[in-house]
Amino acid sequence: MNPVIYISGGCRSGKSRYAETRANEFAAPRAYIATAEIFDEEMRERVRLHREQRGNAFHTVEAPVRLAEALRSLPAATNVALVDCLTVWLGNLMHHRGEDFSEDCQEIHALLKLLQDPPCSIILVSNELGMGIVPENALARRFRDVAGRLNQRVAAVASEAYVTVSGIPLQLK
Amino acid sequence: MNPVIYISGGCRSGKSRYAETRANEFAAPRAYIATAEIFDEEMRERVRLHREQRGNAFHTVEAPVRLAEALRSLPAATNVALVDCLTVWLGNLMHHRGEDFSEDCQEIHALLKLLQDPPCSIILVSNELGMGIVPENALARRFRDVAGRLNQRVAAVASEAYVTVSGIPLQLK
Amino acid sequence: MNPVIYISGGCRSGKSRYAETRANEFAAPRAYIATAEIFDEEMRERVRLHREQRGNAFHTVEAPVRLAEALRSLPAATNVALVDCLTVWLGNLMHHRGEDFSEDCQEIHALLKLLQDPPCSIILVSNELGMGIVPENALARRFRDVAGRLNQRVAAVASEAYVTVSGIPLQLK
Repeated sequence: MNPVIYISGGCRSGKSRYAETRANEFAAPRAYIATAEIFDEEMRERVRLHREQRGNAFHTVEAPVRLAEALRSLPAATNVALVDCLTVWLGNLMHHRGEDFSEDCQEIHALLKLLQDPPCSIILVSNELGMGIVPENALARRFRDVAGRLNQRVAAVASEAYVTVSGIPLQLK
Repeated sequence: MNPVIYISGGCRSGKSRYAETRANEFAAPRAYIATAEIFDEEMRERVRLHREQRGNAFHTVEAPVRLAEALRSLPAATNVALVDCLTVWLGNLMHHRGEDFSEDCQEIHALLKLLQDPPCSIILVSNELGMGIVPENALARRFRDVAGRLNQRVAAVASEAYVTVSGIPLQLK
Repeated sequence: MNPVIYISGGCRSGKSRYAETRANEFAAPRAYIATAEIFDEEMRERVRLHREQRGNAFHTVEAPVRLAEALRSLPAATNVALVDCLTVWLGNLMHHRGEDFSEDCQEIHALLKLLQDPPCSIILVSNELGMGIVPENALARRFRDVAGRLNQRVAAVASEAYVTVSGIPLQLK
């Protein structure tokens, strides 16, 4: 079965770089699934720079909300897909669904189902958000609850899992 | 000697679930020491749901402040006690003692003493609070200092220690 | 070549204590490089207490900004230098340089260069700041970005790296 590699870590802990290193171990063609939505020029520029750094080793697909669909729609020859990142995707999904969001919504369900029988090798980047003091903001508290549970569910189905600290991956499983 | 198992982790990192898994490896009777105080109906409902999930595999004791006494007063046959969690207990203790709180207070001293010769196997859940940015709130800064030092003192006397990340326990010792 | 030992960890996670334990494994003379600036009497008292705890096993040098210079200027016989800590140093450096700060500034460049051919064994303490929720404060967001990248660069050139959790060091490399 195609491997599913889960890579979590704090902000600026080197998780995306480690994910790219792992993705480059797979033969081309490779897909990069960007979950960030582009709101302004500053962000467009950052995304352009990131894309330039990755070079043409990756085919980039934007999937701010419909992540499982984007993974299912990749060209059949795709060998590996790097999803960066789950936390931004979750934020988009919660915003998109609004009141209608639930942790059992179709989009999350579809992702977890796909990861149990992935169409290609999949590397997923996520964020550790829960090791600080309890946030005073109720929305922030809810987001870290939901993000923490999603991390657990994805890591549970992954074949390998890591957390990066100061740029170095620690293997969780 | 009876083992003392320390399990820390961030918010929604799977620490309580891992603690229950470990507790279920011990034969009954098992005690669940809940340190949370029930303030409102929403919380009463959450506690009821948690208790229902644990089923009758555990005998539940509430110990918001007098934790060592609760552990000492368990029925003699008790094989394992799961304390969930140290961080909430510390918050209660600081609130209860007010100006009179010190890290050398009787309650903390009694817990550390008990852990050096535990009356049954003990599993303690705690929280990692110190890996975010320095909080602007002085009380939050103080709490994470005191909680961090308590975690160190408890982990030091534990026979096993873990930190859970994305639902997966990493062994510290 | 002289070892470079990188020790990160959250607030009150035991990183400084572990760093002192490691430093004491080296023969004297030992240097303690304090990066904190002393602003008031409370801090002066805390620093005095820390110094007293370390006893005269260490020669203390203050280096709030010019860290590489301080390391280069140690007496030639110095066997090991303990730098506590990188995060406070970075904050001082950003404050000192103001608008003129960049991650490629001379001070950072000089430190990284020195660590590639260290004049004595060097132990560096740093902080994990990136595992909480995204801070609302833009300066805090920028600081955790810059601190995270510095941690990665220093850990990359270290010969050993650790993260302490609840007082226990986990080896990263």
